[in-house]
Parts: sequence; C-alpha cells; structure tokens
Amino acid sequence: MSNWLTSLQTETPQEGFELAILLARKGVGYTQPSEDIREKLRTVYEDNADSLIASSQVVAIHYQTIAAANNYWK
Amino acid sequence: MSNWLTSLQTETPQEGFELAILLARKGVGYTQPSEDIREKLRTVYEDNADSLIASSQVVAIHYQTIAAANNYWK
Amino acid sequence: MSNWLTSLQTETPQEGFELAILLARKGVGYTQPSEDIREKLRTVYEDNADSLIASSQVVAIHYQTIAAANNYWK
Amino acid sequence: MSNWLTSLQTETPQEGFELAILLARKGVGYTQPSEDIREKLRTVYEDNADSLIASSQVVAIHYQTIAAANNYWK
Amino acid sequence: MSNWLTSLQTETPQEGFELAILLARKGVGYTQPSEDIREKLRTVYEDNADSLIASSQVVAIHYQTIAAANNYWK
Amino acid sequence: MSNWLTSLQTETPQEGFELAILLARKGVGYTQPSEDIREKLRTVYEDNADSLIASSQVVAIHYQTIAAANNYWK
Repeated sequence: MSNWLTSLQTETPQEGFELAILLARKGVGYTQPSEDIREKLRTVYEDNADSLIASSQVVAIHYQTIAAANNYWK
Repeated sequence: MSNWLTSLQTETPQEGFELAILLARKGVGYTQPSEDIREKLRTVYEDNADSLIASSQVVAIHYQTIAAANNYWK
Repeated sequence: MSNWLTSLQTETPQEGFELAILLARKGVGYTQPSEDIREKLRTVYEDNADSLIASSQVVAIHYQTIAAANNYWK
Repeated sequence: MSNWLTSLQTETPQEGFELAILLARKGVGYTQPSEDIREKLRTVYEDNADSLIASSQVVAIHYQTIAAANNYWK
Repeated sequence: MSNWLTSLQTETPQEGFELAILLARKGVGYTQPSEDIREKLRTVYEDNADSLIASSQVVAIHYQTIAAANNYWK
Repeated sequence: MSNWLTSLQTETPQEGFELAILLARKGVGYTQPSEDIREKLRTVYEDNADSLIASSQVVAIHYQTIAAANNYWK
C-alpha cells in the first residue's frame, strides 16, 4: 500500500475522530484489498444495525489511541 | 459533516457520558450517513437486548477516552 | 435525564464496581428510554448466557475507567 | 450484596488473575442474581467454545485493571 | 490450580505474546476445567474463522497488559 | 515458532499499523497453526462483512499497544 498514515496528530478532536474512521477502514482494507468486494459488502452492512454498532466500536478503539496521541487536545 | 466536536472537555462526569453517547452515534453516522435509514434501523435494534448491550459497550469505550481527557473530573 | 452522575469517586472498590454496573445500564437507558421495554428485554437476556457475558464485559470496561479515576483505591 | 471486594491488591499475578475471574462472574451475578439460573446457564455455555472465548475476554479486561492496580507486580 | 503465573516480565516481545496466549487459554480453563472437553471444543473452533478472530482478540487484550508490564521492551 | 517479533518499535505510524496486522494474524496462527486451513478460512471470512469488522477490531487493539510503545510517534 501507498503512504497513507504519517502522523496521529490532528488539529481538532473532530479531525481525530475522522482519522479513527480511516484507521478502522484500513484495518478492513488490509484484509480485503479488493475495493470492489468491500463496496459490495458495504451495501450489506450499512443497512445492518449490529454491523454498524460493531463498526462504531472499532472507531471508538482507534479514537482512544488518537486522543492519547494528541494529549486529548488539551 | 459540519463542525460537531470541538473539545472533549465537559463540566461534569454526566455530560461526559452524554458526549460518549454522541461519539458512539457519530461512529454509526459516518458509516451510514442517511438519517432515514438510521431511524429505521433504530426501531429494530432498540428492541433487541444484544444490540442495546453492544451499543452500551461502544459508549463505555468512548467514556474511557472522555474521562481520561477530563482527568476523571477530579 | 435527571442528574444521576456527579462523580466517579467511590469509597471502596466494590462501590466502584456497582457504579460500573449503573453506567452500563445507563448506556442502555439512553438508547432505549422506555423502562417498560427495558424490563421486558431484561426477562429475555437475563436467561441468556451470551447476553449476560456481554453485559459483564460492558461492566468490565466501565470498571477500568472508575478504577483509574480512584487511583485503584490504593 | 455482601462485602465481597475490599481491595484490588493481590500478592501475585496469578492471584490477580483469579480476582479477574471473580470480577467477571460478579458482573454476571449482579444482572442475574439467581444462583440456580446461573448454574443452569453454566452447563450450557461451558460446552460452547464461543461463550468460553467471550468469558475469557471479560477476564482479560478485568485483568488489565488489576494488573495496573498492582503496578504489574514489578 | 497449580502455580502457573509468577511474573508478567518476559525477555522479548515475542515471549510476551506467547504469555498472552497462555493467559487467554487460562481464562477458558478456569471456566471449563476439563481438558477433555476443551480439546473437543478446540477441534470445532479452530476451523471457525470467527472463533479464531475472537480468540485473537483476547490475546490482543492480554498483550496490552503484558506489554505495559514490560514497559514495551524499550 | 521461529523468531518473528523482536521489537514493537517502528519508524512510522503506518509501519506500526502493519505490525498490528501481523500481531492480529499471529494471534490466529498460534491457535490454528495449519497455513492450509487458515488459507481456506480466509476465503470465507474475507467476503464476510462482520468477520472483516471483527478483524479490524483486533488490529485496533494491537495498534493501541504499538502506538503506546512508540510514544505515539511524537
């Protein structure tokens, strides 16, 4: 893969949240590299409540990391 | 998305908890941006015990982050 | 909701554990505000081993937060 | 419930692990207080691999807390 | 059970990882003490992708604890 | 197993992420050592959204460890 992550530092808590979403997706992308298949799967799980909650949990875990990296934007 | 998160600091532990709930929902909202679909899914999962427990878990993870950001409101 | 959480400090590790249980339930309560529905769901999941284990996990996550907030009651 | 947790300090890492198991079970016990029902459920989930793995996960989360409380028994 | 865990300190990050695997298995062993039953369950879950991923998650949680205990082998 | 992990230190946040993926896979590999079986399982779970999300979660947990080990690459 190309260079997609050079720093965990972000300007704001919200940008940190969006970085957490990127990390969660990359975690999927490394296991399933085909964008076509991921796109097909997305149409399934984005209408499934439990899948969405599980996705939100992965984001939450990454957000812990990013918030700590930014000293909680204090 | 608009500007929805400018700080992890809250006045009280309870406001921190409510912010954790917001973050958990935003984690869903970035993956499923349609409010209509989210509303439809909500009517399903809010009557499902396991979905509610899973939601509560995402809140718990975000609350760890927010509590640390606020030095546990000591 | 009313004022239900003013501090994460507790006298003992056990009171901290009981606070963790409260937080886990509140995480459900914010998503499903109807006490009647929650009560109905409770009769289902309290006889389901996997639901109970999942509930115990949410408690464990909150207990991490509360224990840190109390400097592990050292 | 009676007084069952007065300290997170243990003599050894192994006793800490056993305390983590106690906390995981207490997390279940507060939600399902009937020992009879818990016993019945145990006969089901102790033969189910996924339930056992989930139980082990709850123990792992509590063990993080207890290990930190004991400064990792250094 | 006998004395099986006297320290969280390991020589290398890899030995720490292997200790995390031991802890994950012990978490199961305390709940299902019969080695025969665990062996039978193993033949099932070791061919099940989701069970393997869940097992890997328990290892990851324990590895957090062990890595912290070893100051990340810096 | 051979020597596969000598340090948690990486040059960049992205290399740390790739190390997290390795750790997640090793967690599976220790439980299911057969590469043939793992390969067969991979063809199943890489087309399953929930399995991919669960895998991404394991990566997220390991990434917390690795990021802390690298002082968040500050």
